[in-house]
Amino acid sequence: MQDNTFSLWFAEQLLDIGAVRLQPNQPFRWSSGWLSPIYCDNRLTLSYPQLRKQITRGLCKLIREYFPSVEGIAGVATAGIAQGVLVADMMDLPFCYVRPKPKEHGTASQIEGRLQAQQPIVLVEDLISTGSSSLRAAQALQQAGARVVGVVAMVSYDFNHARQAFEQAQLPYYSLTNYDTLIQVWQKQQPLQADMEAILNGWRQDPAHWQPPSR
Amino acid sequence: MQDNTFSLWFAEQLLDIGAVRLQPNQPFRWSSGWLSPIYCDNRLTLSYPQLRKQITRGLCKLIREYFPSVEGIAGVATAGIAQGVLVADMMDLPFCYVRPKPKEHGTASQIEGRLQAQQPIVLVEDLISTGSSSLRAAQALQQAGARVVGVVAMVSYDFNHARQAFEQAQLPYYSLTNYDTLIQVWQKQQPLQADMEAILNGWRQDPAHWQPPSR
Repeated sequence: MQDNTFSLWFAEQLLDIGAVRLQPNQPFRWSSGWLSPIYCDNRLTLSYPQLRKQITRGLCKLIREYFPSVEGIAGVATAGIAQGVLVADMMDLPFCYVRPKPKEHGTASQIEGRLQAQQPIVLVEDLISTGSSSLRAAQALQQAGARVVGVVAMVSYDFNHARQAFEQAQLPYYSLTNYDTLIQVWQKQQPLQADMEAILNGWRQDPAHWQPPSR
Repeated sequence: MQDNTFSLWFAEQLLDIGAVRLQPNQPFRWSSGWLSPIYCDNRLTLSYPQLRKQITRGLCKLIREYFPSVEGIAGVATAGIAQGVLVADMMDLPFCYVRPKPKEHGTASQIEGRLQAQQPIVLVEDLISTGSSSLRAAQALQQAGARVVGVVAMVSYDFNHARQAFEQAQLPYYSLTNYDTLIQVWQKQQPLQADMEAILNGWRQDPAHWQPPSR
């Protein structure tokens, strides 16, 4: 399958299983604190074995194409753990996962699993919005001695904010589909009303300061 | 492989990769608050692709043998997510995972993924000590309408406390290896000194009230 074809197909699948929700009047609050009229719950795909497998294949394809030097896979906890280890299994590579912060009990680890020094690692992420969770995980891996060569994600919102942050960190990233494709497919399936389109555009322009419409 | 053979082999593997640590003078504090002279970091196995695969096979074997009615797999977050989804992949079943408590942002979910009502679910757990994390996860699944038929884990400490709690919850559980096998294999590899043996026995008798030896 061509990448663009896969991207459209995957966006359709996400809409078909109801993973994408638009709620401009009851916006979602992301872990970054930003408010969002859209929510994309990729974790739902874990409950669909065939779709789940296609996603693993898609992520492996991105990694083989863009990061052929890879020797280990890391998942960003918690949402990146499941597809991360499935990718590691398909590629027969070591796996570890990275917590947002060190655990408060037991061994107080932030990285679970074992890294080799200078091992080229690809991070697997669920969704890239601000990019901060991926970049925090990459930093933790680097501090532990790994070489993070890139990030692959199921979905990216392709915000300028994130692009710049990844560029600054010199960390390339690729995703199976993105915000524009999701909205394009959504429009085809159930055309958005003009006010919803305006809301989504407004949010897209400046997600950090977006506020829900007053009712 | 016989189950007992697998149990010994797996305990050896855990010791070989340094997943088991004895630190009576600097005890570990579990999430339950209990102090422990032993720590078993099964997450390290994720970094060893062959061992990881044998564990997945072992867990699938337990599930096929004891819970043949299974229609879905749930992982206890975070440590049970990785082997949980690998088991789901090998058995071609839906997967979800259960957080210790509902997420504080986004959709505020405790269960990630999608369940069908009355679906027979097997929980995959990393390690059973007090049993409370498994039982809490089982309860969350039941409240969401699932039917939890049992729990499989990599390691169990086989405490009376846990046995009774699982019995009371009418939830059968099985593990690939257990505390006695780990200590038996440890003794064979590097005989424990008498005082360490006494410490481990004392802890085993009453883990809830154990205190490290005064120096």
